[in-house]
Amino acid sequence: MGPEVRWLELHRELRGKVETAGKVDVRSREDLAAVYFPGSMEPAKAIFRNPELSFQLTARGNSVAIVSDGSAVMGIGNVGPCAALPVLEGKALLFRQLADINGVPVAIKARRTQEIVDTVQSISPNFAAVDLEDISAPRCFDVENALREQMNIPVLHDDQHGTAIALLASLINGCRMTGKRLGDLRILIQGAGYVGIAFAKLLQHLGLDRRYAASVREIVVCDSRGPIYEGRGFLNRAKEEIARRTNRSRRAGPLESVLRGMDVFVGASAANVLNAALVRAMNADPILLALANPVPEITREEGYRAGAALVCTGLQDDPNQITNVLVFPGLFRGALDARAYEINSLMKLHAAYALAELVREPARDRLLPDPLDRATVRAVAAAVRNAAHNTGVACVLGGEPQRDAG
Amino acid sequence: MGPEVRWLELHRELRGKVETAGKVDVRSREDLAAVYFPGSMEPAKAIFRNPELSFQLTARGNSVAIVSDGSAVMGIGNVGPCAALPVLEGKALLFRQLADINGVPVAIKARRTQEIVDTVQSISPNFAAVDLEDISAPRCFDVENALREQMNIPVLHDDQHGTAIALLASLINGCRMTGKRLGDLRILIQGAGYVGIAFAKLLQHLGLDRRYAASVREIVVCDSRGPIYEGRGFLNRAKEEIARRTNRSRRAGPLESVLRGMDVFVGASAANVLNAALVRAMNADPILLALANPVPEITREEGYRAGAALVCTGLQDDPNQITNVLVFPGLFRGALDARAYEINSLMKLHAAYALAELVREPARDRLLPDPLDRATVRAVAAAVRNAAHNTGVACVLGGEPQRDAG
Repeated sequence: MGPEVRWLELHRELRGKVETAGKVDVRSREDLAAVYFPGSMEPAKAIFRNPELSFQLTARGNSVAIVSDGSAVMGIGNVGPCAALPVLEGKALLFRQLADINGVPVAIKARRTQEIVDTVQSISPNFAAVDLEDISAPRCFDVENALREQMNIPVLHDDQHGTAIALLASLINGCRMTGKRLGDLRILIQGAGYVGIAFAKLLQHLGLDRRYAASVREIVVCDSRGPIYEGRGFLNRAKEEIARRTNRSRRAGPLESVLRGMDVFVGASAANVLNAALVRAMNADPILLALANPVPEITREEGYRAGAALVCTGLQDDPNQITNVLVFPGLFRGALDARAYEINSLMKLHAAYALAELVREPARDRLLPDPLDRATVRAVAAAVRNAAHNTGVACVLGGEPQRDAG
Repeated sequence: MGPEVRWLELHRELRGKVETAGKVDVRSREDLAAVYFPGSMEPAKAIFRNPELSFQLTARGNSVAIVSDGSAVMGIGNVGPCAALPVLEGKALLFRQLADINGVPVAIKARRTQEIVDTVQSISPNFAAVDLEDISAPRCFDVENALREQMNIPVLHDDQHGTAIALLASLINGCRMTGKRLGDLRILIQGAGYVGIAFAKLLQHLGLDRRYAASVREIVVCDSRGPIYEGRGFLNRAKEEIARRTNRSRRAGPLESVLRGMDVFVGASAANVLNAALVRAMNADPILLALANPVPEITREEGYRAGAALVCTGLQDDPNQITNVLVFPGLFRGALDARAYEINSLMKLHAAYALAELVREPARDRLLPDPLDRATVRAVAAAVRNAAHNTGVACVLGGEPQRDAG
């Protein structure tokens, strides 16, 4: 029996990986009065006077909507909202177990982008944050941008930013391991979908923070037509924005020539895009972060044979697996603890720093911390919470001390 | 310290009466693969091929959306969606504890009625049923009607139908207790809000079922302007519909004259609308069901002093408290067990019959079963499930035996 059959059987037995649980027993009419009618009127009246109290008097303050339209379910594509449910439930399970967060699956039936935006807006009173998941590009950019502008709770497309943060943590520790300096790096990002674009943007934000004070030396993002630069054809809105901000020397041509002089290859594209000959065109001791799944741009074995200093993939049997599971539990935990009204770039950067610093001596087989270790979640959460306070996006709750505001 | 202070304190301590709980432990990378990626791909692919499987491979089949716009929160009025959250959570807690159902609070921010409809439509893939709650009339009628037409899962405005079903159970047992026959009754319903209208409609549906084969003898619904009849002024759409179906003899005039010859007074209106003199205008041994809250149309004491055979209220210290808590756990449990695509009138009637029959010998202080007794929920659920199968609204699940299909 292959694992696929066992996995399906597990889901059939469970009939849901999460459930709604009560936090109090209702045994008597007095209990019923307290938790339902008329007892619920008291917090209701308090919240009516001050809606911010909904974060304290209900589950709202600890609840995250896990939203998808099922247009890009990982690994299988546009399969619709019902088929997104198993993924959303899996994420809700991880939110609970790793970060003590109420994750609520919200699969949305939507033809138009605006319907997703409207629906999330409408149900926002139930949540302290929104995690967008498995939404296709470029729809995911439009949904995230529209919601971030309209809402006063954090909205994050985890497939973009969670993965970008995990990539940055890998890159930081790759530098620590090899003695390279972030500011010296020339980086080629193969793939201009949401992961490639989010990572390019996050790298540029490195300059926002005193820790690095500048971005990397060069970023070139390539799609299937080659390097992206300003004025090139076939650019959608997201790629146009990237074109304005990267590849200032307008590198063009085949991958082999563009890779010359590069220190880092980041793959968020397709199987086997990279090979040993191409790796040898790069600078000495290159770092290869190859996320295509289930077959990466280059295997660990071939990458190391070709002289790479470090190869990481997104595969589950890779000890350095680059996965958003490293990120989202702590990122949202920290945002919720600060009652942040958004998740900004500094919070993302500090999540990456915290992940990287959890590993005392980065090595080929020990580059990233264990995503299932609660200490990983705690460290990321603390860094994110402090960054929220330091950047002024934390809402201090009425009468409550500001926790560990750093 | 009054109970109000304790109730508020309880909510402040709990920070949510329900939470998302995991049903499986994630301890290893293998566990992570099974419950998240790539394990979730297997049920996702199966659901993509057959969306009905979402009811079996995820929590959907056991999940009910508890939806409100906060426009008529019980006892306090139009306070908005955030202030509805404590009530919705209370209901979710009762769904879990009494009926093993995942109740999911869905407070909706909506200016227009259509926004509620659109939002519920969009998030319907997560749920096997929708429970509408605390929505003002006539908006609640429009929302329920629109959703019932569009959706293939049950949609029920519990404030209407749950209360109407509990009222009918009380009336049936009032008849058993007093020797009256349902078919002989003349009933005055004071109050043409959603409870009064839903109860009038449910009474008329008595004729659908072989158990009674006919409705009661006469129904007159009154609003604050007196009896409703066809052609009267000041009728909204819901009242117009009621006018066409009730009070065929066009009774009019003050309450005292309309009550003459009536056997039953049902109050879903306001405090102290009824008094001893008015009760004495009714037929001998009248039944008074007085739901106004927190002060009923007439107190139990005054009703009995005026010669009533039976007085029930909605007050929590009334041993015969008429409350939707008697109804909604079993009603939804039964609908979910049958995977019903709607909750029809027969299912509602049989819920009322089941409630009534749970009491072997109805008496003044023992008219209704205990809402917190799981046996109550089981009996209602079984009756509703059987009615769903018998009326052809149960979706038989692929490869599964039809449970107890009666």
